[in-house]
Amino acid sequence: MTNKPELYWEDFPVGEEATFGAYEVRKDEMIEFASEFDPQPFHLNEEIAKTSLLGGLATSGWHNCSIAMRIMWDGYLHKTASMGAPGVEEVRWRKPVYAGDILSMKRRTLETRRSKSRPGMGLVRFGWEMFNQHNDLKMTMEGWAMFECRTPHKAEA
Amino acid sequence: MTNKPELYWEDFPVGEEATFGAYEVRKDEMIEFASEFDPQPFHLNEEIAKTSLLGGLATSGWHNCSIAMRIMWDGYLHKTASMGAPGVEEVRWRKPVYAGDILSMKRRTLETRRSKSRPGMGLVRFGWEMFNQHNDLKMTMEGWAMFECRTPHKAEA
Repeated sequence: MTNKPELYWEDFPVGEEATFGAYEVRKDEMIEFASEFDPQPFHLNEEIAKTSLLGGLATSGWHNCSIAMRIMWDGYLHKTASMGAPGVEEVRWRKPVYAGDILSMKRRTLETRRSKSRPGMGLVRFGWEMFNQHNDLKMTMEGWAMFECRTPHKAEA
Repeated sequence: MTNKPELYWEDFPVGEEATFGAYEVRKDEMIEFASEFDPQPFHLNEEIAKTSLLGGLATSGWHNCSIAMRIMWDGYLHKTASMGAPGVEEVRWRKPVYAGDILSMKRRTLETRRSKSRPGMGLVRFGWEMFNQHNDLKMTMEGWAMFECRTPHKAEA
């Protein structure tokens, strides 16, 4: 973590795509997360879940987002000059995530720009898709992330 | 949780506002969450955090979202006929959340409609704001939630 980063803002050109991860969702972790943060009955109780829109015991959507973050950290973020993110947009929980799902994240660079106010920082707009091992699309997100620039620039007007 | 719900779709009229919660963020929980899902150095290491955009050790944004969910569950969702949510939009991590912050959520109803495809279901578009005890706005979100209707309706065209 104190090593010099491999990837900077310049390393995410528009149109670039990559896929990361094989994160297996375990029932005990699913229930642990839901118990702590999202104890809706359809995240905790199999019988109730079966009759819910989820069709069976499924993760909290916030758990999916958190797993997505972990997959991205392990896949590439740990070797980037990441400066965090200002937020996220258009999170869509498209299909329930069940225990036994093995999740991956596909990342696509949609847009990039240098920061106007911080000369050493660049922004990248990513689109993300979460799939399971059967190629079911489980979740989509879009959002900006902030990275250090390899080559600093003057602040733009 | 198997009790009859108190609040249905009809109970969230446009313009309604309410505030919930006093969730104190603890440093050990902050680090536990980050270690599991978002181990960026500025969520784990005080010295690195001080020189980062966060200005000090702060929660993962996904932890904030998860805490928001818990505050809403405890505040009102547990007594609603909630059917979950299709996603969330415009999550903005506006200020870092630090250990010792005591968080509350303000909920505002922005828009409502009955489901076109499911006669017994209604949708509510909420705007949420997360504040700490000093009234600092930490996070904002918008999104649709799904509830059972007290009075079922015919599916609309």
